[in-house]
Amino acid sequence: MNASTDQARESETVQIAQRARKAALVLAKLSHETRCAALLKCADVLYQRRAEILAANKQDTDAAQRAIEEGRMTQAMYQRLQTDDKGVGEMATRVRDVALLPDPLGRQLAATELDDDLILYKVSCPLGVIAVIFESRPDVVPQVAALSLKSGNALLLKGGSEAACTNETLVSIWRDALTHFSEIPSDAISLLRTRQDVAELLTLDEEIDLVIPRGSRDFIRHIAERSRIPVLGHGEGICHVYVDQYADLEKALAVAFDSKVQYPAACNAMETLLVHQDIAADFLPPMVAKFREAKVQLHGCPRTMALDQTDCVVSADEQDWSTEYSDLVLSIKVVGSADEAISHIERYGSGHTEAIVTEDRWVAQEFMASVDAAGVYHNASTRFADGFRYGFGAEVGISTGKLHARGPVGLEGLTTYKYQLFGNGQTVASYSHGERSFKHRSRMTDQKPEPFLS
Amino acid sequence: MNASTDQARESETVQIAQRARKAALVLAKLSHETRCAALLKCADVLYQRRAEILAANKQDTDAAQRAIEEGRMTQAMYQRLQTDDKGVGEMATRVRDVALLPDPLGRQLAATELDDDLILYKVSCPLGVIAVIFESRPDVVPQVAALSLKSGNALLLKGGSEAACTNETLVSIWRDALTHFSEIPSDAISLLRTRQDVAELLTLDEEIDLVIPRGSRDFIRHIAERSRIPVLGHGEGICHVYVDQYADLEKALAVAFDSKVQYPAACNAMETLLVHQDIAADFLPPMVAKFREAKVQLHGCPRTMALDQTDCVVSADEQDWSTEYSDLVLSIKVVGSADEAISHIERYGSGHTEAIVTEDRWVAQEFMASVDAAGVYHNASTRFADGFRYGFGAEVGISTGKLHARGPVGLEGLTTYKYQLFGNGQTVASYSHGERSFKHRSRMTDQKPEPFLS
Repeated sequence: MNASTDQARESETVQIAQRARKAALVLAKLSHETRCAALLKCADVLYQRRAEILAANKQDTDAAQRAIEEGRMTQAMYQRLQTDDKGVGEMATRVRDVALLPDPLGRQLAATELDDDLILYKVSCPLGVIAVIFESRPDVVPQVAALSLKSGNALLLKGGSEAACTNETLVSIWRDALTHFSEIPSDAISLLRTRQDVAELLTLDEEIDLVIPRGSRDFIRHIAERSRIPVLGHGEGICHVYVDQYADLEKALAVAFDSKVQYPAACNAMETLLVHQDIAADFLPPMVAKFREAKVQLHGCPRTMALDQTDCVVSADEQDWSTEYSDLVLSIKVVGSADEAISHIERYGSGHTEAIVTEDRWVAQEFMASVDAAGVYHNASTRFADGFRYGFGAEVGISTGKLHARGPVGLEGLTTYKYQLFGNGQTVASYSHGERSFKHRSRMTDQKPEPFLS
Repeated sequence: MNASTDQARESETVQIAQRARKAALVLAKLSHETRCAALLKCADVLYQRRAEILAANKQDTDAAQRAIEEGRMTQAMYQRLQTDDKGVGEMATRVRDVALLPDPLGRQLAATELDDDLILYKVSCPLGVIAVIFESRPDVVPQVAALSLKSGNALLLKGGSEAACTNETLVSIWRDALTHFSEIPSDAISLLRTRQDVAELLTLDEEIDLVIPRGSRDFIRHIAERSRIPVLGHGEGICHVYVDQYADLEKALAVAFDSKVQYPAACNAMETLLVHQDIAADFLPPMVAKFREAKVQLHGCPRTMALDQTDCVVSADEQDWSTEYSDLVLSIKVVGSADEAISHIERYGSGHTEAIVTEDRWVAQEFMASVDAAGVYHNASTRFADGFRYGFGAEVGISTGKLHARGPVGLEGLTTYKYQLFGNGQTVASYSHGERSFKHRSRMTDQKPEPFLS
């Protein structure tokens, strides 16, 4: 590819982003009825045209098969790439679920009467243009397309090259479905095609409001380091369960086991188990046995190893406390107090999800107040940290950042707000001259703001 | 300064930031009563020790006087730097005002019963460590110190070197006042002393959660471009007033005049006036006369110039539409329709505050829905875009970004939230195996969450 082709490619990405920006202005004004009707239509058309999707998916999986044979792809990646009739049915169901969620737009977040006839509303509205960059799973396409349309945002998508045919077909079907609605611009969703597009896209902070990378931790970090646009994503998920001296043993066994074993590859899985020294002799032997049965590799501190009669615990080193195994591996540390557990979490935790198991409400309260993480749990598995389990209906991702959105992020994370001020010709001069003074009376109601109808 | 001294200086900044991070963990757990009592104490001590503050301020202003004589400082900078007895009294009053605001922490933002005995709360909490970098005005010190303490955050301050003595004295008095409260760490507030400290501070994204630059637009941009930490601040304030064909002439004259003239240096002042062609002949001559009286320089489009009989409007060029004059200068454009006005704002506006003057509610509704800005106003001056006028009691700054906080930012902008989950030993496995299913019942109340007392 020569320089002039490079140039053309670059400007194509910019053009796509600019068209998305224009589409966003139109999307922001669509009624909830139109957005929902469009989502239901997209769901129907996706399912009706599933043969096309599966044919495209077969092209991708055939290529993936060759890649596996040549050692360029893992079986796990292949699994994530492949879909079938049932898979497409689930995609459609997910889109319908999003259609049924409450409208995230036009919510009245605050309303204040600054003075007579001078009313200020804080109203939720779309962010504008969202770019989602994801690895091989094609079901991401309808899912984020649904969330973006529901929240009135334009969407730029870039998927992995191994799913190129499937993604292309899904986006093309989605755009076709939208043509049934003359008020919806087709640039509501666009697919970027090359890796170079991504590099350029991450510089377009004038056109794009938010970048959401979906995939492995390293992938997310790679994107975050290169983006000039705010990124919603998580860093590491080094989650702890602390079993306090006043823990109920049965609850502790259940919570710790679930936190590690239920799905160890998830970012909300436990990586380190902290155990109070006064309960360690009672708790650790049955816990170690349970983990051993589930084939969990255990790395323990010296006191953990001393309590282990099975010789299946290997010695943990400093590195273990800051490692996200994402696998059936666990580090265990015996601590002298709840404070020591909290300090350990402060030092090694990643601010994702931290749990305490105890029957002592004061210790629990101290833990919940002290630990600085997106989720702090009392007597519950860290695996509950998830948008669906939290009742958000759908999840954009999980954020370990503290600004804008923290923890599992639902539709709300794709919105911002604007202040709408309705006056009657008021000037600031009359307030600074003392002719008038502000009243600042709350006018919150449960209704959407309809100042024009009052 | 040799390399090893450099090294020492670097580690001092890191050490200060790390101590702030530790202090933040303690501050996050202080009761509202303690935070308020400390604020009232700080206000009292500030006023009691005003002689020290004024003596320090005199050192700074004496140096500034020499700088003016040598042409290194403007009179305007000198004015901002200088304070007096009344000025210190006002600083103390502002601190007391902040003490009286409602507690921004521990607010229950959502509460959901995921299942029996499994309750999820979304609760507001401090961000952690905030760094405020500001130009010469010393009253920024007590103001942001008060906001940070009220919201349970640790604060790193870096002021301009021209106010070094005043800032040093203010911070030292504040720290002394805090020693009356044994539970409050003195590292709740620290002053950084050199420009080099700032460069290093902006890289400490592990220790610092938010950077707030306060000062000119160029200064804010300078900080934003160099920071690895999220920055809360605004870019340009290119605000428009659009006078629609259905405008009430008297309201239009008042709103446009106030938006430009009341305080032209503010970021919420109007820079461009858009006028519908059908009202231009009636509106522009009296408007131009009014602006002329106030010594506003006018740059007009050809149609504006054609309507001007006073010859005081000069020809506007393309550059005018994207210039933030921050002065008694205004560009004026006649447009063919409300849509043209909206498109102009979309192209040249900076997303700060945009106003329409009209008696037609449908045109107004279209404008309020279409314009993508932090503030969209109907029949009110753009100058209302301010935290105090919005009723926030105090203002951290104004944000033209869309994430986390938009528009005038009060105490809420210094908080984030965490999810607290209270369970009874629940595991995710029992839900994924279908033994149990989620209930997701809202449990919102007006009370603070007190799950331990239920």
